[in-house]
Formats: sequence, structure tokens, C-alpha cells
Amino acid sequence: METVPREEIRERISRFQTALAANDLAGAFILQNADRFYFTGTIQSAVLFVPSSGDAILMVQKNLKRAQLESSLDTVIRVKNKNHIPQVLNDFGVNQLATAGLEMDVLPANLYIEFQKQFSKCRWVDVSGIIRKLRMIKSAYEIEQIKKAAAILHTGYTEIKKIIRAGVTELEIDGHLAMIARREGHMGMMRMRGWNQEMTHAHVLAGDSGSVITFLDSPHGGTGNTPAMAQGAGFRRIKANEPIGIDYGVAVNGYIGDQFRTYVIGELSDTFKKAHACSREIHLLLAQEAKPGVSCAQLYDRAVQKATKEGYGDFFMGYGEGQVPFIGHGIGLEIDEYPIISPRFDGILEEGMVFALEPMFVLPQQGIVGLEDDYLVTSGGLERLTLTEQSLIQI
Amino acid sequence: METVPREEIRERISRFQTALAANDLAGAFILQNADRFYFTGTIQSAVLFVPSSGDAILMVQKNLKRAQLESSLDTVIRVKNKNHIPQVLNDFGVNQLATAGLEMDVLPANLYIEFQKQFSKCRWVDVSGIIRKLRMIKSAYEIEQIKKAAAILHTGYTEIKKIIRAGVTELEIDGHLAMIARREGHMGMMRMRGWNQEMTHAHVLAGDSGSVITFLDSPHGGTGNTPAMAQGAGFRRIKANEPIGIDYGVAVNGYIGDQFRTYVIGELSDTFKKAHACSREIHLLLAQEAKPGVSCAQLYDRAVQKATKEGYGDFFMGYGEGQVPFIGHGIGLEIDEYPIISPRFDGILEEGMVFALEPMFVLPQQGIVGLEDDYLVTSGGLERLTLTEQSLIQI
Repeated sequence: METVPREEIRERISRFQTALAANDLAGAFILQNADRFYFTGTIQSAVLFVPSSGDAILMVQKNLKRAQLESSLDTVIRVKNKNHIPQVLNDFGVNQLATAGLEMDVLPANLYIEFQKQFSKCRWVDVSGIIRKLRMIKSAYEIEQIKKAAAILHTGYTEIKKIIRAGVTELEIDGHLAMIARREGHMGMMRMRGWNQEMTHAHVLAGDSGSVITFLDSPHGGTGNTPAMAQGAGFRRIKANEPIGIDYGVAVNGYIGDQFRTYVIGELSDTFKKAHACSREIHLLLAQEAKPGVSCAQLYDRAVQKATKEGYGDFFMGYGEGQVPFIGHGIGLEIDEYPIISPRFDGILEEGMVFALEPMFVLPQQGIVGLEDDYLVTSGGLERLTLTEQSLIQI
Repeated sequence: METVPREEIRERISRFQTALAANDLAGAFILQNADRFYFTGTIQSAVLFVPSSGDAILMVQKNLKRAQLESSLDTVIRVKNKNHIPQVLNDFGVNQLATAGLEMDVLPANLYIEFQKQFSKCRWVDVSGIIRKLRMIKSAYEIEQIKKAAAILHTGYTEIKKIIRAGVTELEIDGHLAMIARREGHMGMMRMRGWNQEMTHAHVLAGDSGSVITFLDSPHGGTGNTPAMAQGAGFRRIKANEPIGIDYGVAVNGYIGDQFRTYVIGELSDTFKKAHACSREIHLLLAQEAKPGVSCAQLYDRAVQKATKEGYGDFFMGYGEGQVPFIGHGIGLEIDEYPIISPRFDGILEEGMVFALEPMFVLPQQGIVGLEDDYLVTSGGLERLTLTEQSLIQI
């Protein structure tokens, strides 16, 4: 099985250590699966300690052998439980922590309190922002993984044409997308950092389903088939001449690909044709203008201006309280990575960023149309990683 | 769409309030999706405040209209963001919180710190134990939901016989199980409370795959197809005469059904036949002995005694560091609910508990066999909720 190359891990730890030192931190404890996988190559139960200089120590609770096989770190050792961490660190010469980092956006309160007790003199700093900024810039290896995910998405979008027929339920389409994804090697889940946000492999939203708002930090929600889930496909049967919005995501070796395509059996109404063409124009405009140095807020503004000029401003990226203040988001080990193409994200595009660009229009009680692809920021501009050429797929 | 009945919500809040008062708590804030769904019927973004007496207040950030439709609580109001919570509570006459509860096993540290700042005089107590004990006893409504999930599992286990052929990959079988689950109404995910534990709809583990240990708090792990996931199905092709362990879970209206069956193309070896028969005997023995008043530790001991007597003690519920100290777990809105049938769980069986009973044997480098079904504890003993009769399914 493919493991994360040694050089990747070394480089990531090194960049993190530079950031820790710059922030006057003695080190940081990394526990969350996505972050720990990023820095070690394994999600076996463990606590990683990264000092601002010196060797990182992976303290494994379960399963040591597998962690040693999967991770290229030099120091992968057993720790009986978290209470033994101070002693283990002491054995490695780490006996005073004045200021150290934790992933405080995701670490549960009880674990935070445990760290407070075990290192009673330490001041704790949230390093999630530092980590998210490191992870924002992708290596060639990481981009390769996203391309593999993109290839599976394309297979899914192509094969699913055979399933989309009038009378089929959203859930049947969703189920087939799940089947194709797993068959081709989707790892089985997509991670999302935001707490209480929950991510499924697909949203299949036909007609009015596409306009149902939910808690999710996304321009679309859907009914789902229960308030307990409150998103995605439901038992609604698809009909001819209505937009069928399909947001589809898979992950390979941890890395996520994320696309949206609009399908229709027959023809869209003129309103939806126009809205879809507008989403495509905005998408292509932004894909052309985006390059290193361009601010995320500026890209967002360009999109809103264009949508407003076309008379669709109220329906851009949702409507009412369903409207979200972004038109794109970073992807990687999580689906809600940096950068966020949003006026609220203070940053410019940089080489090596990978993001999903997803201008969409949601018409109340009617449905959703849009176009989402994944892009790598290169010195010359954007390089598309997703493969599906058609933006509106007619059955 | 089916919403949680008003009487359910009222009863749950009332039982929680009794427990809050008994613990001298002025109230508790509930944020996590599964808990909030339990007490309100909605997972729309919101903070629930349950005072020890008086009306519960659901403060919704997104989406108010849907929350009001889905929840039968009387007080479902908009709150702009979490900073406004003290003011909102003040408006409702709640202006002093001396001691209050939070779900500190799941609440991220940053949110905990926000609560500390906003209610600077309040002492915070972890109420996750209280909530988990309330949720442990299921109502008739909840049992109905688990039965619906069980019906889907049975459909999946029946249909998948057509797909299981020599040469098919574990991932193809997994994908078909995903497809069937969604088509039949699986809500799209199963919630697990344990942090960093990650749950997929199935583990399909053929031959030696069934003996691969991973981080997961489960007797089986599997290779998965990447260290980034490190569990479940991989690209391994299934062969004749090897055990194919299929753990399958679905959720309906939030409630989880969870089963394990052993398949084989052809015949199992005598060793596996004997191990499987032993898991079945332990399963039936415990299903017969379990009734209100029996301690969880005692049930576990009975199982271990039997396994040891048959010479399989070292392989019962895993081997080496993969061995888990339980033979069953509560199911409900999460897959890791109380009771735990374990020496480490201090409790007795009570009427209304629902748990998955899963004696399994894992033979190193060889595979897994076992038998898992879901049971309701009634005054007369256990009532099986899962439907599949065959314990060893030959193709």
C-alpha cells in the first residue's frame, strides 16, 4: 500500500518547526487525524509532539507496528496512555514547556483540560491557524493524489448518465455514485474540519430539492431523507426538464476531489439555462483572472459583480439565509481547507494552493445550477485538476 | 418528512432536567449534532439551553425556518452568533449561571473557552455522562427506527449474495452495500462519539484482511486502501473457502442498526468452522442469559470463559494489541453508545437498552469470523431487532 514519502514528511515537519519557532512556541502536540496524518503518514492512535527544533516524537497508543510501517518518522514509540506523555517527553530531554501549541479548534475540551493538568506550567496556544496555512500549499505529491481523486470523479460523472432516468430517486443516483467511488478506490470518507459539519460523498438535488437550505456551510443543502441528516439526496423522484445538481466528492490517500455538475433529462427552462450560462461565465472569468498575487476577496467581488449585473445577485451562492459568503474553498486532507475565496478571508492566491471554484445559483422553490472544478494555482495561472469537460450534461 | 414526535422531545427534556437538578446544575448547553437532535429533533446550526426547570431555548444560527419545522420545542428563536447567547438568556430571565453543563467530551476547546469568557462566573461540568445514560434507554419510537435500519441491513445482506464471487474486490462489495443502503433510505452516515474514531457504512474483510489491526475501537480493522483511512475494504480480491467478514451499518432517522455476518464461497476450513460455531454458541448463550439486572461485566466474563474453554481465548475479540475489552455496545444515534458489554463498564442491563452483541474471533494472518445482532432488553430478556437468520452464509 502507498505510504506518504519520507521526504514529504520531513519537509512538512521542517516547515512546521520554522513556524513554531517564529511564534515563540517550544513545540506542539498534534492529535487530530487529518493533521496527524499530514505530519506522520499514519492515523493509528497516537499523539505527535513536534518540538520547535529536534526530532518529532510519535507516541502510539494503538497500533504501534502499523504506525511504524506507515510513518517514516524516526521516533515512533509506544505510550501506554496519555498520562505517560510528560514522562516520555522527559526521557527525550523535553522537560519544560513554557508555551506550546494545541489544535484548539478541534481538540475536545476534556483533552484540553488533560493537557492543562499534565503540563501545569505551560501556556497553550491554538496552532490550528498555523497548520491550516502550512497545509494550504500543496506539494507535487499531494497534487498527484488530488488528480487521482479527480479521475474517479470523472468516472462517476460519466457512468451515472446511464442511471439518470425520469422516475429514479435522488437516493438511487447517490447510491450508484457511492458504489462507483468505492469500486474505483475512494477511501470511504471525506474529512471536514468544521465541528458539527458533516460531509457525505454526494449531494444529488433534483428540482426544488436544490433550493432547500440547511445548516451546512455550503450553497446547497437538500432535504435528505430525515431531519437527523438534513442534507443531500432524498426519496424525491427526478423528472424531465428540471436541473439535477450533483455535487460529488471522493478522497484518495486522504486527498479530496470535489466537483459539481448540472444534469438535465431533456431541456432546462430558459431561466435555468441563463442562470447556468452565467455560473459558467463567472467560473471561466475567475479561472482566467486567478493567479498568484490576486486577493481572494477581489476574486469574490468580481464574481458578485458579474452575478449582480446579470440580475441574479440575490440567488448567487444561495438565497436568503442560505447564501454563503464564498465562491471557492481549499481542498486537501479536508474539504474546508484554506484558501477560502471570500471577502472574509484575508489572503492572496499563492503558487501551490488547490481550491474548488464553485459559482452556483439557487432559485427559491426551483432548484440549483452551477459549475465546480478543482484548480491548482501555478505561476502562470490556474491549472484545472478535474477532468469532466461538459458543464451541463443532457441525458 | 418524518419528524421526532413532540411527546418524545418533551419526555427527553424532562428526564434531562431531572438529572440536571439532581446534579445541582442550573442548566446545560447542548451543541453537538447527535445530542442536539436527541433533545430538539433538528440538527440545524443552533445552541440549545436546557435549564434545570422551565422551557428549553433553542437559539438558531442557521436555518431558523427549518429548525422550527423540524423541532417541536416551543422556543426556537434566532441568535445572530454565539456572543449573543448571554443576552438572549438574560431576556428569558436566565441571568446567573453558577454551575452549568457542557458536552466536554466532544465540545472543541475553543468553544469551551468561549463559554468560559461569556459566562465568566460559571463553573462548568461535563454532562456527557448524564446525556449518554439518558440516551441509553430507548423509547418505543426509537426502537421502531432501529428496526427500520435493521430491515435495510437484511436487504443488503440478502442482495449482496449475488455480488460475492471469487475475484471480486472487497471494495466492490463495499460499494454495492453502500448503494443498497442509500437506495433503501440509509441517511448517509453513522455518527460515532469517540473523537478521531471514524465510521464507515461497512467493513468487508476477506481472509487475512480480517486480521489486520488498526486504530479503531473495534475487534476488526482491515487494511483499507490507504493509511489515510486505515480501515475497511481494500483492493484485495476475494477467494473461495476463506471467511469474508461483513460488518454493515445503516442509520434511519438518526438511529443505527449494526450487524456482522460471515460469508464464504464454498467451505470454511475446519479451524474457521469451529471458531465460527464457537462465536455462535457464545452469542446464543449470552442472548439467553442477558436480562434486566444482569451486569455487563458478568456477561463479558461468561463469554471469555467460554472462548477460553474452547481454546480460542487469545483470539477472542481480536488478538494482541487488537484485542478489545468488550463484546457488545449500545446503539442509537451513535454507534458507540451505552451500555458497553465490558468489565470496564459499571452497569447492569435495564429494560429499554438496545445493544449490538458481537462475539468474534480473529485468527492472525488468517481472518475473522463472528456473529453480530442488535437486541432490545425487555422485562423477559432480549428481543432481537435484526432480521437475518443465517449466521454463516455460504455462496
